[in-house]
Parts: sequence; C-alpha cells; structure tokens
Amino acid sequence: MRPSKNHKNYGKLKNGSKDLLTVKWENNQVIMIDQTKLPGKLVYVRYKKYEDVARAIERLIVRGAPAIGVAAAFGMSLAAISSKAKTPESLLKDLKVAYDRLRSTRPTAVNLVWALDQIMKQAASKNDIQDIKNSIILSSLNMATDDITTNKKLGKNGAEMISNDEVILTHCNAGSLATVTYGTALGVLRAANDMGKKISVIATETRPVMQGSRLTAFELDYYGIDFSLIPDTAVGHLMSKGTINRVIVGADRILKTGHVYNKIGTYQVAALAKRHDIPFYVAAPISTFDLTSNVNEVVIEERNKNELMRMGNKLLAPKGIKIFNPAFDVTPPELITGIITEKGILKPPYEESIAKNI
Amino acid sequence: MRPSKNHKNYGKLKNGSKDLLTVKWENNQVIMIDQTKLPGKLVYVRYKKYEDVARAIERLIVRGAPAIGVAAAFGMSLAAISSKAKTPESLLKDLKVAYDRLRSTRPTAVNLVWALDQIMKQAASKNDIQDIKNSIILSSLNMATDDITTNKKLGKNGAEMISNDEVILTHCNAGSLATVTYGTALGVLRAANDMGKKISVIATETRPVMQGSRLTAFELDYYGIDFSLIPDTAVGHLMSKGTINRVIVGADRILKTGHVYNKIGTYQVAALAKRHDIPFYVAAPISTFDLTSNVNEVVIEERNKNELMRMGNKLLAPKGIKIFNPAFDVTPPELITGIITEKGILKPPYEESIAKNI
Repeated sequence: MRPSKNHKNYGKLKNGSKDLLTVKWENNQVIMIDQTKLPGKLVYVRYKKYEDVARAIERLIVRGAPAIGVAAAFGMSLAAISSKAKTPESLLKDLKVAYDRLRSTRPTAVNLVWALDQIMKQAASKNDIQDIKNSIILSSLNMATDDITTNKKLGKNGAEMISNDEVILTHCNAGSLATVTYGTALGVLRAANDMGKKISVIATETRPVMQGSRLTAFELDYYGIDFSLIPDTAVGHLMSKGTINRVIVGADRILKTGHVYNKIGTYQVAALAKRHDIPFYVAAPISTFDLTSNVNEVVIEERNKNELMRMGNKLLAPKGIKIFNPAFDVTPPELITGIITEKGILKPPYEESIAKNI
Repeated sequence: MRPSKNHKNYGKLKNGSKDLLTVKWENNQVIMIDQTKLPGKLVYVRYKKYEDVARAIERLIVRGAPAIGVAAAFGMSLAAISSKAKTPESLLKDLKVAYDRLRSTRPTAVNLVWALDQIMKQAASKNDIQDIKNSIILSSLNMATDDITTNKKLGKNGAEMISNDEVILTHCNAGSLATVTYGTALGVLRAANDMGKKISVIATETRPVMQGSRLTAFELDYYGIDFSLIPDTAVGHLMSKGTINRVIVGADRILKTGHVYNKIGTYQVAALAKRHDIPFYVAAPISTFDLTSNVNEVVIEERNKNELMRMGNKLLAPKGIKIFNPAFDVTPPELITGIITEKGILKPPYEESIAKNI
C-alpha cells in the first residue's frame, strides 16, 4: 500500500501507520479527519465535548455508517468524563441526554443506534460512577478495534471471490473514511489488491455530497489502487458497453428481508446492474443489520437543499426553487447477488440466510 | 407565461417578448445568451467573427442541438460577410474553412452538420458573390424562424397526450435555451401548461455540466411551471415510489433504427423508466434525424476532465486522477415509447415509422 505521488505528506501520520485513521481516541479527546476539507486538505479536528461530536456528525465532518457509530460511542465517553454527577442515577441521566442528542444526528444509519445502545447497556450494568465511566471508555475503544478486525475479515471474505483484471464499480464511499480505518466495500477492494489481484475501480461522483469524488477517489489514489472517476449519469452507459464486471457498495442499514438502505443512487445502480447481468454485492458488518424494522418504517433522511443549490462560491440553481434531496434509498433483495459480512457472504433467499447467520 | 418573482427583470428584454431568445441575428452580429453565466446572471454576448461563434459552441456558451445548428448557421453568415474574396470560387473556399471549423466544435449533435450542410448547399447554388452572401444570411434567418415554428408544432403534438396532474421527469435541458426560443422536451411541457393542463416537472441536475440545475430550473422558474430539482442519483428512488408518470427528453441525434443520442444519463433514465413501466418519450425536430449513420459509427464526444474536477473555486476530486467524462449516451429503441416531432408522434417499430415519416 503506497501513498501516491499526490499525497506524500500523509506518510507523516503520527501513529506511524500509513492507513488513514478516520476517528480515534487520544488523551480523553476524539480526533477525526475533517472529511468536508477533502480532497483539498487532510485536516484533523479534536473534540472535548459530546455536543461537538454530534454537530460533527450532522455536518458530515465524519460520515459513513460504521465511522458514525464509533464517533458516537466516543461522544458518549466524552459525556461520561465531563459529567459532574455525584450518583450513578444522575450520571445515567446525563448519559441519556447525550444519548438522545447523538442519536438524533442521522436517522437512517443503524450502526449509530447500535453503538449508542451498546454503550448504554454497559453503563446500566455497573453500580459505581467510576466503573460506569471506565466501562464506557473501554467499550468505545473496543468498538473501534472491533471495527478494524471486522472489516479486515469482511474484506478478506469479499476479496476471495474477485478474479484478476476485474473492473469493479462502487458508489459513494464505503472505505477507510466510512469506518475507523479499513473500509467495507473499499476494504474488499483493498484486500483484493493486497492479495496481488489486478483490479480497476470505477468510482461514481455520488451527488450531491460528492463522497465518490472527494473521498473514494482520495482513498483509492492514496492507497495506490487503479481507478477512474465518472459522473453518476455515466453508470448505465459504462454498463451497456460491457466495461463493468461487478458492483460492490456499502450499506447504512440492512433489514431482515435483505432490503438495503444506502446512499441515494444505490438503488438505480443495482437496477442497472440487474439489467446488464452484472453481479451486485453489498459489503457491511453485522452491526449494520436491523432485524426489527420493516421496510416502510425506516425514515429516509432528507438533507438541506443547499447541497444542490451551491458548490463553493458557485450558485448551481435559481434561488427559491423546490428541491427534493433524499440522502438514502432502498435496494430490494431481488437485485442483490450477495451480502459480504465478517461471517461470510450471505446469499438469497436473505430472509433465511440472515435469520441463520446474523 | 409569467416570469417568476425571482426574475422580474427579464420582462425588460429589448425585443418586447417575454420568451428567452437564446440566439439571434441583429445588425450583422450574432447575439447569444451566455449560458455559462446562468442561473446567476442573464448576460448576452455579441460576436462579429465566426471563430468566436465556434469557440462559444465549444465552451458551451450556447448548447443544445437545435440552438447549436442555428448558431453555426449564423457563424457562416459572419464568415460570408467578412470574406474579402473577389470570386465566387474563393468565397466558397473561405466558407469551407469556416464550415470545417464550425463543424469540428461538437462531434455528436447532428443538427450542427445538418445546418452547415444546408448553408453550403445554398452557397453552391449561386454564381455571384453578393447572391451567395445574401442567400446564406437569408437561409440562416429562415432556420431560426423555422426552429420556432417547428418546435411550437412539436410542442403541441406532444402536449395533446399529456393528462391533467401528470408528474413528468426531464433530463438535461431541451428548452428555450437548447433551441432558438421554444424548446423541444420543455416545449411540450410549455404547450401543455399553455393549454391549461396542471403539470409538475421533475428536473434532474444533469452532472457534470448541470444543465438541469442551471438551465432547466431557470427556465421552468422563469415560465412559471411547477417543478422540483433532484440529483441524478434520485431518479430510480422517485420512480420506485411511483412519483413519476412520464419522462420526456430531447435528442442530439436519432438514427434510422430509433437509437437516440442524448446527454449522458439519458440511457439510464430510460432503462429505469422501463423497469417501472413509465412511458419514455423523446422530443426532437426532424433535423435531429441522421438516416445514414449506424449505431457503432457515431462518435461520442468526451469532454474535459475539469468538468468533474472543479466547480467554481472548489476542488471536487484529487488532482491527477483518471476521469471518464462522455458527453452523450445511446438509448436503444426498445426503451422508447414514442418520438415526438413536428410531424406527429412516431411509434415503434421505428425503422418503419422513421422511414415512412422522416
């Protein structure tokens, strides 16, 4: 894994590693890559208050379902440390306030709720203030470590099916920058690359927030994996020319029926892949599964219309018009060839394979 | 047709009309709306040299297949006027230089070649220098007038099939700004609106050049037609929710087989419409038909990678990466419900209906 010529300076990361570390805990602070500054600048931000972490999640300074989960858990650690509660009961009350605030930041990604629930469960199992605080910090650190181990396993499971010379399309960013460090969909591609398989990646821009241009392109360039960037409008055209051999994307939430919530545009990529007989895979850790909700119950976050109205100093559309800007869509199970997890690749029928393995 | 509250000042157009006049001939000059300045500013540019018109076409100051055709014809008028040739032969030589330059600007739109060929045919039919010059100016003015008449007929033909309360999706800009003034796909919507039918439009942003956000949104707002803007990634999602009743797009070239070349992303909109049983229509004048080329012979223009790299002052992707940026794609006839022309709506099988009517 070599940093490309464009990013020589990243070899200077303090932790000695060349992997991008999206979110970490250091000296009782949360440190994150400010993803809104990419690809122009690799900037780290530090937070001491859970409220700042909540705002960072809302403002997409950190994004990507697994990374949000770990960031929120670290936010709970900050809340625990800063609480002045004198009894376990009042500490739990303080934690509940932080839990509600952090949980409200993004409605669709399930890893967020999963991580917050784990932390609260830990907290509720202890009777002493210091025990509660310690267990929260330890749990959040474990989550970060588990995220790395999980995604490396997942990456290896997915990479085994990839052949030499494949051209693989991915949408949005399910890479280092969506996790603590290894990535899910891009983790599979990194693992394939590490195994010595020659692959090429097609990355979509992913309007409106451009996670493909800004983040996936940055990462693939950084890790030295061959790729081309395309506009979202060119997916069907490339598929019709026979250029794409496989699609791999991440997920923000997967239901027991196999319905996958992911970045807006995923559904149409899946539908187009089906039309062209191109295998379509989802890569996601088990923490992404929501076994209780039904497909009509999940709230799809609608984001600010400014995302379509402006870019930098440029006005893209007339002021005052109506804009529809959903952040996610749903891909039905009949379009999904397999779901790559740390436990292996789940295959249809998903109601069965998910019930059996998750 | 009322200018919306955002664009009150456009009522002041010198020609007294409230219609946008994209390209016109005045005092031996070509006057165009500079479409690269929209939606922020409605600015007119004037050209006295055909070379400036060629550059304006390349830089997308004027775009849209019918508008490019008329602009190129006016460019030939400028070339004729400025020629210092003393014999018809040397004038024809000068005109051939201008023809080649103008023809090289955009390889995919067929109206450009059609218009230039018409002009050259006119020129070759005269024997006197002044006759040649006059006939070129007259032909180019006729083309501009014909474009308006044709598109109004086409608009009416299309509008008749539209029912009250339809939600119609369009991609790119096939409106006033793609023609002399009336529009093709948007001409149909304007005609339906003028007939008193209540319609709503969904306009896609149309990455990478954002003709949907910048031009279609501007026009629909200007003409007071109800619409919402969406990212290109939300097309499938909206279709799966049952929101869209019909799709109407323009075309840059239509082959005798019914294959339609249009803005990148059209093919995938058509494929998604098919999946959701949504009628998909193409609106284009007869000058868009190319009855000689085959589907594998047409060059699809690849545009500069900067279109994906930067927006205003903002860097969207890491410098130095590979980018694939095709301007057009091909929609096969089996995805097209009908082709709306000034002669009526052509229906499949297109080899027959095109051979019979075009």
